[in-house]
Amino acid sequence: MRGKGEATLRANRMEAFSDGVLAIIITIMVLEFKVPEGDDWNSLIELGPKILSYIFSFVYIGIYWNNHHHLLHMVRTMNGRLMWLNLLLLFWLSLIPFTTAWMGDSHFAATPTALYGIILLLAASAYWLLQRGIFNQHSHDPHFVKLIGKDWKGKLSPLLYLTAVLTAYVSSWISGFFFVLVAVVWFVPDKRIEQALHNKEN
Amino acid sequence: MRGKGEATLRANRMEAFSDGVLAIIITIMVLEFKVPEGDDWNSLIELGPKILSYIFSFVYIGIYWNNHHHLLHMVRTMNGRLMWLNLLLLFWLSLIPFTTAWMGDSHFAATPTALYGIILLLAASAYWLLQRGIFNQHSHDPHFVKLIGKDWKGKLSPLLYLTAVLTAYVSSWISGFFFVLVAVVWFVPDKRIEQALHNKEN
Amino acid sequence: MRGKGEATLRANRMEAFSDGVLAIIITIMVLEFKVPEGDDWNSLIELGPKILSYIFSFVYIGIYWNNHHHLLHMVRTMNGRLMWLNLLLLFWLSLIPFTTAWMGDSHFAATPTALYGIILLLAASAYWLLQRGIFNQHSHDPHFVKLIGKDWKGKLSPLLYLTAVLTAYVSSWISGFFFVLVAVVWFVPDKRIEQALHNKEN
Amino acid sequence: MRGKGEATLRANRMEAFSDGVLAIIITIMVLEFKVPEGDDWNSLIELGPKILSYIFSFVYIGIYWNNHHHLLHMVRTMNGRLMWLNLLLLFWLSLIPFTTAWMGDSHFAATPTALYGIILLLAASAYWLLQRGIFNQHSHDPHFVKLIGKDWKGKLSPLLYLTAVLTAYVSSWISGFFFVLVAVVWFVPDKRIEQALHNKEN
Repeated sequence: MRGKGEATLRANRMEAFSDGVLAIIITIMVLEFKVPEGDDWNSLIELGPKILSYIFSFVYIGIYWNNHHHLLHMVRTMNGRLMWLNLLLLFWLSLIPFTTAWMGDSHFAATPTALYGIILLLAASAYWLLQRGIFNQHSHDPHFVKLIGKDWKGKLSPLLYLTAVLTAYVSSWISGFFFVLVAVVWFVPDKRIEQALHNKEN
Repeated sequence: MRGKGEATLRANRMEAFSDGVLAIIITIMVLEFKVPEGDDWNSLIELGPKILSYIFSFVYIGIYWNNHHHLLHMVRTMNGRLMWLNLLLLFWLSLIPFTTAWMGDSHFAATPTALYGIILLLAASAYWLLQRGIFNQHSHDPHFVKLIGKDWKGKLSPLLYLTAVLTAYVSSWISGFFFVLVAVVWFVPDKRIEQALHNKEN
Repeated sequence: MRGKGEATLRANRMEAFSDGVLAIIITIMVLEFKVPEGDDWNSLIELGPKILSYIFSFVYIGIYWNNHHHLLHMVRTMNGRLMWLNLLLLFWLSLIPFTTAWMGDSHFAATPTALYGIILLLAASAYWLLQRGIFNQHSHDPHFVKLIGKDWKGKLSPLLYLTAVLTAYVSSWISGFFFVLVAVVWFVPDKRIEQALHNKEN
Repeated sequence: MRGKGEATLRANRMEAFSDGVLAIIITIMVLEFKVPEGDDWNSLIELGPKILSYIFSFVYIGIYWNNHHHLLHMVRTMNGRLMWLNLLLLFWLSLIPFTTAWMGDSHFAATPTALYGIILLLAASAYWLLQRGIFNQHSHDPHFVKLIGKDWKGKLSPLLYLTAVLTAYVSSWISGFFFVLVAVVWFVPDKRIEQALHNKEN
């Protein structure tokens, strides 16, 4: 029987590929920091919003990397559907260097900030679809069904992103607050999955 | 006897290297999205064709990544010839960020669209050569010979790419239709190989 | 019990991700070498400070890669805290291509050189925090406590970086001397850890 | 005893890191192909020398990747010296995207072509040092000593590169001929090592 071994192998490769893409995304954002003309501290001031924007995205990609890692550990049977859902997630994440640069360049103007939130919202949706696809493989496990029910983070985040998108036209500070809030919510790794893995293996 | 172990090791490393190159290709394409001057939605409109062009290439690279992964699982004996055929494939794929940017920048003008198709045609040819090289290792297996005979995707794609190249001078919409058609044809993973792996291991 | 296996798996993935980020950082710095207009040796002269700046950073990233590798081998139980400390380290290191380019571009002017030192100081601090987090897992091992006490490199480096930052405003030559000094100090892999691993396994 | 296992682990990680750097080098060279202003075939003509230059470098990096892979398989005891020799090799290779772009941009002018050869010469020297360091670990094996004596490729290449560097000032065609010659010489994987591995394991 190849079932388990083959699925693990493919999930590992999907994980390695995703890691590669995330590592590149997180690093190439720095290429947007154009070297200043001057050579004093004032020359750095204009980079302020870009660096702030970069910090946001660095944290988000870090969160995705961490949660994605937990999530892929649960894959039982790898298939084309999961692979494409994963690529959909990577697609939205791959646009983050662009939205990060635009938001920073425009000093957190309304539309770039809203677009930043929209892309994060789409990435969160893709993550949710991927998660649902993987959780479905465990649907006959009553323990899991209970855990899935607790997915308050997955349900809250899109709402927070949406609020951030809409409030971007009121004030980029309010919008920024909601971006920070999502980051804080996701900062800790997903206990549901950690616990499930723990229970499964004990 | 080192045969199997050594071959697997080298195939794994070729796979990891290819994955790295594909992950970089798929991600650096985004560097072509120059940050717009303005900060409203209108500023994004000019990016439209570039984003469409990017989506095409993202899907193609995703398809190659997926099929390549299936294909390399079949390698029995790794050798220099297969390694160079693989590098030939990566060479053509490495040109995709350039052709993607030109096609998008020129708003799907005839020549850039034709060049885009030509590079995809050359990549498909390299893939076909690599596939043939790997299949040849299984030529004494009657089951495989039968499977190879069914390679309609591999035979159809070059024809579709060629049609896309030629019709680029008529209309980029017709050309685009054929690009989408190839993507749809390859979207699902290669059942032949999945089935072969399944039969081999059961 | 999953303890050890799971922790090793996660540490491995953190290591692979870090390696990916370091490999990208070390390579994209070269993108800052703009192709000269002319085609004679004189055209290269202006690149001199940028290349010198690149050599510095290449060596620093090489040192981090090597020591990081030794350090992660000691992880007993992986957790979110260690993961975020590792990301903090990668964050500071990810800014090195920018500070490298600015320092080179400005021909080692005072402020860019000081900033270069500040980022290295912050990276060293993050490394120290990560190291402390990992060492704490071994705090009940008297052999280790003894070894940790010898961490003169970890204590000396921040002082040297600080000196380099401050002396940047006196002369970039003096500042450069301290940068070279830190590199020399760290050049050899951390014997403490090598020895500890050795003792542990014998 | 940790000897073998630890050494293999560290050699594997060095291999993975090197692969990452090589994958990035080979791919970012394409970023030098600026999207042409026009949208007809004539616009591509100016890219001709850059593409030719890229093909050269792609083949060289491919050769290094392949031989490097064979070489690292022979590592018996990993140590800091080998790690730094490997980083020295990667340093010279990391400059190839720059020399490739300059050579292409200048339409194979004398100085950029000579510099291209000098960097390849330095990379070849670093490879030779790394190779010697690894071969020394096998110096008590009479079979190996015999094999090392046959290293005609390693001795011929520097001479060919040197000739290419010097003839660059006569004609870039002659210089190019010697670059192609080195590529042809190295095209096949190193039989010495393949044979040695074969003998060792049988």
